[in-house]
Amino acid sequence: MDPLMIRVAVNGYGTIGKRVADAVAAQDDMELVGVSKTHVSPEAFVAIERGYPLYIADMGERAAFERADLPVAGSVEEMVKKADVVVDATPAGIGAKNKAMYERAGVKAIFEGGEKHELAGFSFNAHSNYKDAIGRQFIRVVSCNTTAITRLISYLDQEYGVEDIHVVLVRRASDPGEIKKGPVDAIVLHPVTIPSHHAPDVKTVLPNTSISTMAMMVPTTFMHMHAVQMRLKREPTVLELCALIRRAPRLRLVGTYTGMSSTAELAEYMRDIGRPRGDMWENGIFEDSLSIDGRNLRLFQAVHQEANVVLETIDAIRAADGTIREPEVSIEKTDRSVGLHPME
Amino acid sequence: MDPLMIRVAVNGYGTIGKRVADAVAAQDDMELVGVSKTHVSPEAFVAIERGYPLYIADMGERAAFERADLPVAGSVEEMVKKADVVVDATPAGIGAKNKAMYERAGVKAIFEGGEKHELAGFSFNAHSNYKDAIGRQFIRVVSCNTTAITRLISYLDQEYGVEDIHVVLVRRASDPGEIKKGPVDAIVLHPVTIPSHHAPDVKTVLPNTSISTMAMMVPTTFMHMHAVQMRLKREPTVLELCALIRRAPRLRLVGTYTGMSSTAELAEYMRDIGRPRGDMWENGIFEDSLSIDGRNLRLFQAVHQEANVVLETIDAIRAADGTIREPEVSIEKTDRSVGLHPME
Amino acid sequence: MDPLMIRVAVNGYGTIGKRVADAVAAQDDMELVGVSKTHVSPEAFVAIERGYPLYIADMGERAAFERADLPVAGSVEEMVKKADVVVDATPAGIGAKNKAMYERAGVKAIFEGGEKHELAGFSFNAHSNYKDAIGRQFIRVVSCNTTAITRLISYLDQEYGVEDIHVVLVRRASDPGEIKKGPVDAIVLHPVTIPSHHAPDVKTVLPNTSISTMAMMVPTTFMHMHAVQMRLKREPTVLELCALIRRAPRLRLVGTYTGMSSTAELAEYMRDIGRPRGDMWENGIFEDSLSIDGRNLRLFQAVHQEANVVLETIDAIRAADGTIREPEVSIEKTDRSVGLHPME
Amino acid sequence: MDPLMIRVAVNGYGTIGKRVADAVAAQDDMELVGVSKTHVSPEAFVAIERGYPLYIADMGERAAFERADLPVAGSVEEMVKKADVVVDATPAGIGAKNKAMYERAGVKAIFEGGEKHELAGFSFNAHSNYKDAIGRQFIRVVSCNTTAITRLISYLDQEYGVEDIHVVLVRRASDPGEIKKGPVDAIVLHPVTIPSHHAPDVKTVLPNTSISTMAMMVPTTFMHMHAVQMRLKREPTVLELCALIRRAPRLRLVGTYTGMSSTAELAEYMRDIGRPRGDMWENGIFEDSLSIDGRNLRLFQAVHQEANVVLETIDAIRAADGTIREPEVSIEKTDRSVGLHPME
Repeated sequence: MDPLMIRVAVNGYGTIGKRVADAVAAQDDMELVGVSKTHVSPEAFVAIERGYPLYIADMGERAAFERADLPVAGSVEEMVKKADVVVDATPAGIGAKNKAMYERAGVKAIFEGGEKHELAGFSFNAHSNYKDAIGRQFIRVVSCNTTAITRLISYLDQEYGVEDIHVVLVRRASDPGEIKKGPVDAIVLHPVTIPSHHAPDVKTVLPNTSISTMAMMVPTTFMHMHAVQMRLKREPTVLELCALIRRAPRLRLVGTYTGMSSTAELAEYMRDIGRPRGDMWENGIFEDSLSIDGRNLRLFQAVHQEANVVLETIDAIRAADGTIREPEVSIEKTDRSVGLHPME
Repeated sequence: MDPLMIRVAVNGYGTIGKRVADAVAAQDDMELVGVSKTHVSPEAFVAIERGYPLYIADMGERAAFERADLPVAGSVEEMVKKADVVVDATPAGIGAKNKAMYERAGVKAIFEGGEKHELAGFSFNAHSNYKDAIGRQFIRVVSCNTTAITRLISYLDQEYGVEDIHVVLVRRASDPGEIKKGPVDAIVLHPVTIPSHHAPDVKTVLPNTSISTMAMMVPTTFMHMHAVQMRLKREPTVLELCALIRRAPRLRLVGTYTGMSSTAELAEYMRDIGRPRGDMWENGIFEDSLSIDGRNLRLFQAVHQEANVVLETIDAIRAADGTIREPEVSIEKTDRSVGLHPME
Repeated sequence: MDPLMIRVAVNGYGTIGKRVADAVAAQDDMELVGVSKTHVSPEAFVAIERGYPLYIADMGERAAFERADLPVAGSVEEMVKKADVVVDATPAGIGAKNKAMYERAGVKAIFEGGEKHELAGFSFNAHSNYKDAIGRQFIRVVSCNTTAITRLISYLDQEYGVEDIHVVLVRRASDPGEIKKGPVDAIVLHPVTIPSHHAPDVKTVLPNTSISTMAMMVPTTFMHMHAVQMRLKREPTVLELCALIRRAPRLRLVGTYTGMSSTAELAEYMRDIGRPRGDMWENGIFEDSLSIDGRNLRLFQAVHQEANVVLETIDAIRAADGTIREPEVSIEKTDRSVGLHPME
Repeated sequence: MDPLMIRVAVNGYGTIGKRVADAVAAQDDMELVGVSKTHVSPEAFVAIERGYPLYIADMGERAAFERADLPVAGSVEEMVKKADVVVDATPAGIGAKNKAMYERAGVKAIFEGGEKHELAGFSFNAHSNYKDAIGRQFIRVVSCNTTAITRLISYLDQEYGVEDIHVVLVRRASDPGEIKKGPVDAIVLHPVTIPSHHAPDVKTVLPNTSISTMAMMVPTTFMHMHAVQMRLKREPTVLELCALIRRAPRLRLVGTYTGMSSTAELAEYMRDIGRPRGDMWENGIFEDSLSIDGRNLRLFQAVHQEANVVLETIDAIRAADGTIREPEVSIEKTDRSVGLHPME
């Protein structure tokens, strides 16, 4: 055990947790002490194959794991005690039940966006409020959609000043590996009421934002799409905007020359360039969609629901730890470790 | 042949044409002189079963039709000559090729929204500009999406004054009976550029409208969904809005009590109440979505791509004919004939 | 109350129940005493609009129904007491809980295929075993898939003798009006084990059948597809088969000339010919797929999951009542009442 | 240029070609001389990023490539001349047009399954007929579906003897990166006639096989599913079958303990274990589906349409070259190079 390393446990080795675990393992200042599952599942086999110590929520399940040739390292309680910081990537609402355990163990915890703001008392986006997160015991990384919106606003606001943001979110209905959730052939208002929860959620990170959001769900499995409109305080050129997007970490310009106009093509490209699991960690902003009409900016951005918060979670761990105090330093360290670098 | 009846031919008995033909047959001031197909198809059988004289584009196909037990009444040229008004419901772009034939025959023609505005020189929505269409030789009924937007704006503008309209259109990828068009699992920017063609298309009907539109395509088959935002010149209450929607022909309030939040549930309801082919001719505006935020109005409306322009086409026929000069009279006559009446 | 009419209550006014209710209302020897819902829903509005007395499962919900302007005729217990025969179209497994209520009320009951064979002790298909059902208190109409397979086997076995039946069922994932069930983009083995439950279920109607079945679920909403293989005891010609299918009630030949090759085109055709809700009550057997290879017969048949059992349920009511003792008489009466007649 | 290396060009850098190129680059006895594209596309950027020399079909497009910062190494004709073996992974039917070019250049060529058997005169599966392919100028690697069926039959026939094979193929409608092909919500008979082309195609590799096939297309993007039935000459146990599948290269047992029952879960697992692009090169045979009923064997196998033929293509290159004469040697070399090894 290296005292200079942050010992991280990932409680909940599912869609987000398995990605966070890999990202933690790729950091040179973090050590993955373990991951957890509740039941035997394909992901449990993956954890073992990757060499991650596997802890389980209910020790009554131990025999089932061992019958499946899945060695159990201990209980989740034991795992938590070994950690400096726990990432709680359990299903929405379970994090709230786990908080007491983290308090008892005296560890820090990072919650994901399925939990309420109040649970952690602080909602996080690396570029927006890293410094305010330093040293906190509980930090909530906002959801993939809120992260993507917050990220975009942060960079644009810093440069141009933004107001009257209006985002229509078209959400994928299920993750690629899920087989139960639908719909099969419907556009579902999700929710039918306006604004959707995203507008207030953005304000948990950026309190003074004027924003409205409307959300739908459609039968796709890979990436949400945001139709964004906002008013800028001063009018940029498209070239300036492209340059800003290119140099902003975790914003990605989907260039005109690629000819891409869909989530499917973008996902194919991510697989082709060798991204682990085909993940796109960045907001994918379509260059051809950048439209400036006076001070109104409109654009489309794609958001990979499984991957968009992974790097922010790593930064949140560092902020909780407190050793690295500059957001740019953490962001660059995180991005470099997974192989993300600004693209031409 | 009754001299008081408008003799109507439907050129192109496909998704729109077959619905228009049934609607024409339901009018007491119109007579359906025939419909046309290019090839043997399930729809050709439907035409014969309904007792509609079937004309064909290429008489070289006559033998194929007759082998399939489909009696041919003659050529499209012959059909056109029997008509006062032709509804051209052929695939996009074919109408432009047919115009010369209509000119030679000296008949009036209604084109659909797949054709360019310039082809007819006049783009139509019953509530917006019926009177300007009276007696014209060529009228273009705008597409389902443009019709739905135009209809909504017309009624709201008349009552409140509207400006800064912003519509994000989420379009169904294929019609229910199609098997070739995709995507299967993607959100496609359609087009990636902003504005989509809908904003300028609305202006062909309502020239002084300030509107921006963004459009996507998703893998569903039934109904588009519009996320609408606009600024009203004076602030209404939700109750006033509901009352306006309820009394406006072809706007339909999808009430809170029904609990519906999707295209699928709305479509199921249309089938349940016995609509022919499950058609929804009206804009389906979700009561629960009505959101007033100062002078900003936001709402969701569903638009049945196969049916939304059918009734407008009937009104356009009447406007071209010129006997009935009041839009309200035509609209009410059309709606009553198919069984559409304001719902509670 | 006409003593010659069979008084029928439909307990559960959902996907199957609402169709059965309409079919009951169309019979000249039946009277619909009422339908039931548990909660306010779009279907409750449909029931009221159709003029069907609406009973509710839990009288504690009465206020909610009345707030929604839905008059409540009474409780389900009260409805049951007014009936001679109850059709239980509640969700799978609820019928088992309702049986005691039917016994207390001394009424006959028809269960649907979601219930186990043992619940009724008798599983029904009109052509296969109507006579054995006469006068029974409890009858189970097998599921849409089992009905379709049983129907096909019955007609072919009677004419040619069949053995070694093998059916691969490709099932739609959700009904058109559902928005929660998936998958969105997956082929799901449903179940992964072989045989699926369909093979034993066919034997509840036709005990001496040698049959194996394998089943998958795919992201579509309308109609299952069966890939059928069987061995016939004597070799037919394709022409003979076509003639048999044409004259068998509830088998439908999807003719070569129509050019149809999919569930979507067949569904479109049903809507076009004016079927209520676009329902296809028959097995849709594709003429072009009929393949005879020695004594092996192979074919594809489409099965509309929402509609396939509706007419069998009407026959089961008559069998339970016992007045009409010949299956052919009931089948013809049922089919004629809804407008189904052999097609050319 | 190492004279001991087989110089390989990949003509057509699309779905199959880009995977074959990576696999070629991973072989220690092959050298990738280049890949080709016809138009600027995301895949062209991938080729450049991977450092593959990019050749283009039409030198008139050169300026367009260079405007997009994509250096062009030369024309396809030039690329072909540098190769010993060309893999033709162009769209179906284009290979036939390219054959004359390969003949002029005196190079060997591997065609894919979109081309007709007659074009190459020899259809290939590594385990079935590697030795007969040695030294041939033209070899056709059969399609993903035919490869999967052939592979399964070869291994089972060798051990048990097989007859009366019946496969129902449920095919994915489009690849994950495609956005134009549908259907969106339909099961399409593809073709409606029986047998589908797969049965005769299997016989191009295994001429004496008794097989029938039926095929459908469903709206999914990832993996076909085969419902397989066959008669074995002697009856195995399930345990023996599992052992055979485990040790057969390119057959993969999807184990009971994983709990997987769908293409989606299997694809997720492939992404999780780090397969490039999430590719599954093997037939995925579901352990829980293995059903032995006397001498009848039934099972489900999943087939990844983009990846299933990649390794066979590498073996076909070696067979054409002729240096390695034992199939087992080539298969093991190929599999090891990409990291595929028998799994527990």
